[in-house]
Amino acid sequence: MMTRAFNFSAGPAALPAEVLAQAAEEMLDWHGAGMGVMEMSHRGREFMSILAQAQADLRELLAVPDNYRILFMQGGALAENALIPMNLLGGERASERRTADYVVTGSWSVKSQKEARKYCDVNIAASTEAEQFTRLPAMDEWQLSKDPAYVHICTNETIHGVEYFWTPDLGAAGLPNVPLVADVSSHILSRPMDVSKFGVMYGGAQKNIGPSGLTVVIVRDDLLGRALPVTPSAFDWKIVAENDSMFNTPPTYAIYIAGLVFQWLKRQGGLVAMEAQNKAKAECLYGYLDSSDFYRTPVAKDCRSRMNVPFFLHDEALNETFLTGARERGLLQLKGHKSVGGMRASIYNAMPLAGVEALVDYLREFERSHG
Amino acid sequence: MMTRAFNFSAGPAALPAEVLAQAAEEMLDWHGAGMGVMEMSHRGREFMSILAQAQADLRELLAVPDNYRILFMQGGALAENALIPMNLLGGERASERRTADYVVTGSWSVKSQKEARKYCDVNIAASTEAEQFTRLPAMDEWQLSKDPAYVHICTNETIHGVEYFWTPDLGAAGLPNVPLVADVSSHILSRPMDVSKFGVMYGGAQKNIGPSGLTVVIVRDDLLGRALPVTPSAFDWKIVAENDSMFNTPPTYAIYIAGLVFQWLKRQGGLVAMEAQNKAKAECLYGYLDSSDFYRTPVAKDCRSRMNVPFFLHDEALNETFLTGARERGLLQLKGHKSVGGMRASIYNAMPLAGVEALVDYLREFERSHG
Repeated sequence: MMTRAFNFSAGPAALPAEVLAQAAEEMLDWHGAGMGVMEMSHRGREFMSILAQAQADLRELLAVPDNYRILFMQGGALAENALIPMNLLGGERASERRTADYVVTGSWSVKSQKEARKYCDVNIAASTEAEQFTRLPAMDEWQLSKDPAYVHICTNETIHGVEYFWTPDLGAAGLPNVPLVADVSSHILSRPMDVSKFGVMYGGAQKNIGPSGLTVVIVRDDLLGRALPVTPSAFDWKIVAENDSMFNTPPTYAIYIAGLVFQWLKRQGGLVAMEAQNKAKAECLYGYLDSSDFYRTPVAKDCRSRMNVPFFLHDEALNETFLTGARERGLLQLKGHKSVGGMRASIYNAMPLAGVEALVDYLREFERSHG
Repeated sequence: MMTRAFNFSAGPAALPAEVLAQAAEEMLDWHGAGMGVMEMSHRGREFMSILAQAQADLRELLAVPDNYRILFMQGGALAENALIPMNLLGGERASERRTADYVVTGSWSVKSQKEARKYCDVNIAASTEAEQFTRLPAMDEWQLSKDPAYVHICTNETIHGVEYFWTPDLGAAGLPNVPLVADVSSHILSRPMDVSKFGVMYGGAQKNIGPSGLTVVIVRDDLLGRALPVTPSAFDWKIVAENDSMFNTPPTYAIYIAGLVFQWLKRQGGLVAMEAQNKAKAECLYGYLDSSDFYRTPVAKDCRSRMNVPFFLHDEALNETFLTGARERGLLQLKGHKSVGGMRASIYNAMPLAGVEALVDYLREFERSHG
């Protein structure tokens, strides 16, 4: 008998059961095509229609302006850590594009700036490492370069649980022509965002979009054509854009699943509805954690992630007991990332409020029996 | 009602119905885990077991020696066209690794050598372009460099339908220490191959392995550590190998499907059995084409691909009529690649003999009614 647990994995993460059921149903024969989606030529009319619909739905959901391109790529955000500088440091003004600015707010932006050093000078405009990444630096703390090729932020740190609820305004900081580049992997589609404030948004799909192996890049079209000559053609955004994400064979099945997720999000009421739902879930979980002395959560209240909630038992000797009890109740993958320890509940779009409530019930029960 | 057609797509291509049925069955709950494979953390024990099994089965099927590493990557063969030189031109002897040799036998090796020119001098050791890629150049026609960093071949040209049934011996050509690098995308696992004769074999999965979005690289371990400094970490074979294909989040679902295909191949009797089956299919199709004056097939008999069979109607004005009739009979995706025109039947492992027989029946019938 099939049973579905509540899966708090940080990614690859839970997907809506409706989406998976439809995928299972269509696995051997998509819409009477006589073949499954995995078996379709990427250049055939069936898959072309799936791709076009997925792009259109993502554009609608996020209200992506016309002067931005949506690229479906491969390699994940980790590959983009190299592909960002490779795609933004070249072009006609390459000689002026020697420095990039990074704001470091957790493990993911640490990795991003480290990889970028292969391709340019990196200026750390701000870092909260000394505070164990428990808050976001306000813009008046940032020490930006004079003319960086771009400014990079990670708008939701999956491991440290820190999320931007504001968008940095580089114009107000005297850099109106410098693109803001954001790793949005772990909170894209969790709420409306103003895409026009960014030059580039990118993310791995395996949190709120679909399966791992798909990377979404949303890039303003004037930024295409700045690739360094050493950029592999398959990862040159301009070439990918000109070929409508079909320069190389795209990850067709992952795009199909993402498309089913986009359709599901539209049925839920789009990103405004998702934001309300995600707020309710986060308030439920943080509310309980705040009310208890048995657990602690390290992140400053104004930048607590609604997607990734790291928390700790004050008595860490109870960690294994806690996790075993959780698994027994069908509350899966709550162990924190090995770099920070403790626990982490990732509560992406596909996690229903009932899952968070079940977790809070267990937190209360565990506190009562072990507190 | 579900119906399955015979799907001759060159890739993404038909998969065994058994594999798809199992994937559909396990979509919402894998082995009682309470979640589907797409939803599992790549670092959890469930997915780790799937990955380990897939690697072990591929190693067993292809008899990959212990001193070779199997890497699961992203980007397809097109990305590897850049990643091959990026990974083989650096290291301690980088100053001597300035030239790579390419043997050009069809569209895919044309693309490979073109991309490599970004990173090194390319010597075209041989090319059959003047003969429209209808044969393979014998080794005594090759004009190799004195000390190339590697020699690249494409062992099965998916578009032109040319396949190597012999393995170049670089030792006999006076280059015993130069690695032979082969794009094996469209015939890997169609028959046993002697991996030990290659330095690197690589291929996109979307023909005989599984879904698009997964790339398999099999590399001799002494070749790791030669990456150019500009190689993105996520695509540096040494880093990928050291992290057991988990430096970045791997395409988990594609790896799972590949693993199911490997299990299916073992149930069929492994690659010896597949070779017998593939020979029978190819003989059936080429046999009919040879017997007819209505169709023609351009490739020399000793290097006709068993996987990709391009053929032409003498009267090309009948092409659309032919394709429409084929579709009506459930014979799908027979249109040739736009760069060469005509027809192409891709008859990979998952295509049963019955599918080839149905195609031959249709070829005969169409000839009778239009000849």
